[in-house]
Amino acid sequence: MNERSRLIVIGGDAAGMSAASQARRLRGAEDLEILALERGHHTSYSACGIPYLVGGTVNSSDSLIARDPATFRRDFGIEVRTATEAEAIDPDRGTVTARTAGGPAVEEPFDALMIATGAVPVRPGLPGMDAPGVFGVQTLADGIAVRDVVDTGRVRTAVVVGGGYIGLEMAEAFVQRGIEVRLIEAASEPMTTLDPDMGRLVHDALLKMGVLVHTDEPVTGVETGPGGAARAVATDRAAYPADIVVLGLGVRPDSEMAGAAGIDVGPTGGIAVDARMRTSAEGVWAGGDCVQSLHRISQAPVAIALGTHANKQGRVAGTDIGGGYERFGGVLGTAISKVCGLEVARTGLNETEAERAGFEFATVALESTTRAGYYPGAELMTTKVLAERTSRRLLGAQIVGRENAAKRVDVLAAALWGAMSVDDVAGMDLGYAPPFSPVWDPVQIAARKLAETV
Amino acid sequence: MNERSRLIVIGGDAAGMSAASQARRLRGAEDLEILALERGHHTSYSACGIPYLVGGTVNSSDSLIARDPATFRRDFGIEVRTATEAEAIDPDRGTVTARTAGGPAVEEPFDALMIATGAVPVRPGLPGMDAPGVFGVQTLADGIAVRDVVDTGRVRTAVVVGGGYIGLEMAEAFVQRGIEVRLIEAASEPMTTLDPDMGRLVHDALLKMGVLVHTDEPVTGVETGPGGAARAVATDRAAYPADIVVLGLGVRPDSEMAGAAGIDVGPTGGIAVDARMRTSAEGVWAGGDCVQSLHRISQAPVAIALGTHANKQGRVAGTDIGGGYERFGGVLGTAISKVCGLEVARTGLNETEAERAGFEFATVALESTTRAGYYPGAELMTTKVLAERTSRRLLGAQIVGRENAAKRVDVLAAALWGAMSVDDVAGMDLGYAPPFSPVWDPVQIAARKLAETV
Repeated sequence: MNERSRLIVIGGDAAGMSAASQARRLRGAEDLEILALERGHHTSYSACGIPYLVGGTVNSSDSLIARDPATFRRDFGIEVRTATEAEAIDPDRGTVTARTAGGPAVEEPFDALMIATGAVPVRPGLPGMDAPGVFGVQTLADGIAVRDVVDTGRVRTAVVVGGGYIGLEMAEAFVQRGIEVRLIEAASEPMTTLDPDMGRLVHDALLKMGVLVHTDEPVTGVETGPGGAARAVATDRAAYPADIVVLGLGVRPDSEMAGAAGIDVGPTGGIAVDARMRTSAEGVWAGGDCVQSLHRISQAPVAIALGTHANKQGRVAGTDIGGGYERFGGVLGTAISKVCGLEVARTGLNETEAERAGFEFATVALESTTRAGYYPGAELMTTKVLAERTSRRLLGAQIVGRENAAKRVDVLAAALWGAMSVDDVAGMDLGYAPPFSPVWDPVQIAARKLAETV
Repeated sequence: MNERSRLIVIGGDAAGMSAASQARRLRGAEDLEILALERGHHTSYSACGIPYLVGGTVNSSDSLIARDPATFRRDFGIEVRTATEAEAIDPDRGTVTARTAGGPAVEEPFDALMIATGAVPVRPGLPGMDAPGVFGVQTLADGIAVRDVVDTGRVRTAVVVGGGYIGLEMAEAFVQRGIEVRLIEAASEPMTTLDPDMGRLVHDALLKMGVLVHTDEPVTGVETGPGGAARAVATDRAAYPADIVVLGLGVRPDSEMAGAAGIDVGPTGGIAVDARMRTSAEGVWAGGDCVQSLHRISQAPVAIALGTHANKQGRVAGTDIGGGYERFGGVLGTAISKVCGLEVARTGLNETEAERAGFEFATVALESTTRAGYYPGAELMTTKVLAERTSRRLLGAQIVGRENAAKRVDVLAAALWGAMSVDDVAGMDLGYAPPFSPVWDPVQIAARKLAETV
């Protein structure tokens, strides 16, 4: 009889615990020991739910946790060691050096290793960025900390630095808590994952909901008060008072430890993996925000931090570790967000990305209604689509609109996944009833228009 | 210089007027004369909006009309002759015999003919089916008539015969008007376009909203009162009092006149057309409810009456008539409906249809939530998916759920359009944010489960 082998997972969130759970489904506890090391105190939580916790839409941080360490132990036979930082990997010897709660460094042997270290928020090297009162919003602990500060009732003004998804959602959360919010963005429009013409629509909507928006205005630092805490955010134009500062400047893959261990890290800064989530080191897998993925449209590696990717990649890695067969099909960068009444979505390549990938393409942006025009609750939405010249293949799409607008991006994501053309999108047989859409769905109206010009 | 040629369109609704408008876009009035013959009084209206007119969600029948005859004349240079019945076609001579408002029969010459005669409601040859008080709900005139009767305030009980989309939507309309509604269906469950297990969910929801539902109960006739008007609906079990009776027994293609003219009619009863919507007769096109279409999954001809198909087919025909090039890609039978808080959708083949088409397949039906479980407003939805054994290709899908459930069928319709597998659906990069879906979209959870068993 074989000895039991041992899987170590570094990182107890989406990718790591998906991998652990899937490996367990395929290999019982008598065959595979699983140990997960998590530097924080929480496992498998919805990081995307943090803004709703701060805003008060969700009351308890517990409800954001899908499974806690006790559940993993009890129901899956997976040991989770929290407050435990992995410090080094030795792939050749098959060990991870880890330290629990400031205790001594311990060397843990593994037969299989899953690296799911996630991402680290970008913190520009500017004065005051690490001051108390300046928060990233990456972990549940960050979210709880921000909520605790807001709950004191002493926050009257908030500055959000960076106008991406997390920045916008945090701006909404502060608005809901009755706090004056200022959003500062270095680019010409917020939501730089959209093209500027679509970002402009988001900008207008933010202004309407009372957010003070500054664009083309790079932050130069955080000014601190007597106690050393953040007091204002400085830009090249002015200093804006802030009782709290939230950084929404994006994240980068946390791949340092892997790189130091000699595991290949790609040009994106993400760990290089194959379609089965195997790294360059034998017996070492990786997934989630710490890896780079193949973009299905540009065919280039990208590092896009999204929970959807992390969950799917974790599952694929777990299948492989468990002796099964599954491949990760790559990403489209489909993302979707709700900011007060506004819905924003994107998939595939935007104009900048399409240019960088060397595509010749045409675009159409078109306003339509979310329901039959005569049906109550019909709202406006703008759909932008990009298609390659000659092949007429869809390259990407963006949607900005009101209720029931954004999730339509999934149709375009499915079309991108299948390498379909604008003619396919215009011709496909989508569902219609007056409460749901006009007889030509907005995404089809846009595709039809693009088909005439591409 | 060539003489101006003449297009006659029979039928002034979706397919007919889409064809006329598209032909006009490609050929100016100096080149092409366009005459549309419409037996009713309305053009280009939303037949799918009729239940909302009756229920009071939509106030005026005018708001269901996209373009009236005056608009076609003024903005498109298209002449519409309403109250005009086409009686015969002579493809060889190139003439249509038509009669306006009971006047004399007039022979109208054409160079091109577009047949868009639509569908006729199925009226079983049973006693009393043509009595006053028994309504089909096919044309806007039908809808206005039903609304007028309801508006008298004298309708206390309504019986809807047939539990398809239109039957359900009419039941909702009557519920909204405070009328006691009885729905009588001959099959084992309502919504026979779904499998019975999914139809059962609709059945339960109808009961909860107070509709009296009878299944497995074929109607045997309509009983009439002293004045000859409908008084009750009789079945093999009982007679149910009814102040109004609505027939929702489906429709069949109105292809008689075309058949009489020697134009090929297919086994479905629909006019046979190619992908450019050309009939067997030179210079004669057809589209909409009167034709049969190629089902993309079964590869068999089907006659499915849907406005989405009609609009697309009309456009293709108009492009061809106008000298352009476009093909109609076939249908999936994607349909979607809302009945009070319940949403119902289907696409592709259901189990019965898949069996008839000779597929070996597996199915999964799975309950999930429409949003992240912790996000307010998360509702339950059941997704059923069918996939072919061996090829693992998706064959069809059905959804029954609450708010934000049904329109997800479009993702599956897109996957069907692209002949994708369950693995594609499970792996594709869909949008996620807590207000919109769980991190694995419900359609992906179902596909993933099916991928494990097919």
